[in-house]
Amino acid sequence: MNDTLSLLMNHRSIRKYLDKPVSEEQLRAVVAAGQMASTSSNVQAYSIIAVTDQEKKRRLAGLAGNQAYIIECPVFLVWCADLYRLKKSTEAHSGDKETYEDSTENFIVATVDAALAAQNAAIAAESLGLGIVYIGGVRNSIADFSEALELPDLVYPVFGMCLGYPDQDPGLRPRLPVEAVLHRDSYNPGAIEEVRSYDQVSADYLSKRTAGKNSTPWSELMAKRLAEPVRLHMKDFLNRKGFMKR
Amino acid sequence: MNDTLSLLMNHRSIRKYLDKPVSEEQLRAVVAAGQMASTSSNVQAYSIIAVTDQEKKRRLAGLAGNQAYIIECPVFLVWCADLYRLKKSTEAHSGDKETYEDSTENFIVATVDAALAAQNAAIAAESLGLGIVYIGGVRNSIADFSEALELPDLVYPVFGMCLGYPDQDPGLRPRLPVEAVLHRDSYNPGAIEEVRSYDQVSADYLSKRTAGKNSTPWSELMAKRLAEPVRLHMKDFLNRKGFMKR
Repeated sequence: MNDTLSLLMNHRSIRKYLDKPVSEEQLRAVVAAGQMASTSSNVQAYSIIAVTDQEKKRRLAGLAGNQAYIIECPVFLVWCADLYRLKKSTEAHSGDKETYEDSTENFIVATVDAALAAQNAAIAAESLGLGIVYIGGVRNSIADFSEALELPDLVYPVFGMCLGYPDQDPGLRPRLPVEAVLHRDSYNPGAIEEVRSYDQVSADYLSKRTAGKNSTPWSELMAKRLAEPVRLHMKDFLNRKGFMKR
Repeated sequence: MNDTLSLLMNHRSIRKYLDKPVSEEQLRAVVAAGQMASTSSNVQAYSIIAVTDQEKKRRLAGLAGNQAYIIECPVFLVWCADLYRLKKSTEAHSGDKETYEDSTENFIVATVDAALAAQNAAIAAESLGLGIVYIGGVRNSIADFSEALELPDLVYPVFGMCLGYPDQDPGLRPRLPVEAVLHRDSYNPGAIEEVRSYDQVSADYLSKRTAGKNSTPWSELMAKRLAEPVRLHMKDFLNRKGFMKR
């Protein structure tokens, strides 16, 4: 196994950070590596807000689920899908022509672009000895969160990412067996059977991490999650911001 | 610069492949590395269809834009957002409870999950000496494409990915300056000015790659792209598949 593969296979989300700054050079290296990810037709339809101001981090944490690690990490990155830059920087060429920044297709392009860049950045950060954790909570109160960052129309925060030196070494979380997610030549509905063995594996893992207090199998945890009316404001919010009107 | 960072900074999309197979061991290593990417609340809401059957690759290529490299690469991976597995494997626990697999929020979760896993897989592949290119064309005729792969409801192909040994060494494509995409503490609309210098850089790059035949600046290329009524079927298709109903 080469060093890169070994790095990828040893990813853990870090939720406790040392009180040690991330340098400007490191931040730029992480973002530059993110930018080298593939992007649909070179649109590069994303922006990153690096939040280091302590007061602002506190405010954003309050809107995103109050995780202490958003406040404690030296840099909080907010990864945004951004069709605003595309729209604005092409206006001089577009004239009166109809444009399609409001299509569901372009919403997907921008969201995927942001995710590919972020994952490259995450790997770059880990290769530099830094740790990260993704924060979906930026979508909890997404309107207020967007306002706090002064995001214009056609920009939305897809997720956040804490960045800093790890102050913990959590265990590796087991994933579904490869057979559950990898299909051959067409979709195999029978792959779902693989979840059974994973229920046992993930229950054992959870039991170990909670000193026996919790051993809920994955499918039961997921059933609870799927029954939660989470972030049902997303459709309206995105429409209001100019996304997915058609 | 460490080896991983150097790998990330040297990414090129590969559109010509050697006639040399990717081993089962390599394929599994690539997928396993993909699975170690972060996933929202551990939902792992994606599936990968590895297409190696030559007839099927030919058929899929015909539906995705007829790129020769889809047929020539030894393995064509189709990365799908998959809420079907989540729904099916939790039914026994859910009983009569309302569930939210049809929310825009869960559509975003599944799409982002697929993208993060795919980018990890891309890095893993490149670390093994393989090359990749993302294929957005899977969304060109997405209904027929999905049918060819027998994708059930709540599964959609986000993008494809060719995988194989490179038979070319294309130049590095320059990206927007870091200042254009990286904002500090809040969104800076002035960052758009950075596009001007990039217009020159990307025009020079294009001119070099086309032996002077094409030197269209980025913002002009993007204006053309934004004025194309591309894949306007996406919204209806996704709704029909059970996604984003609310």
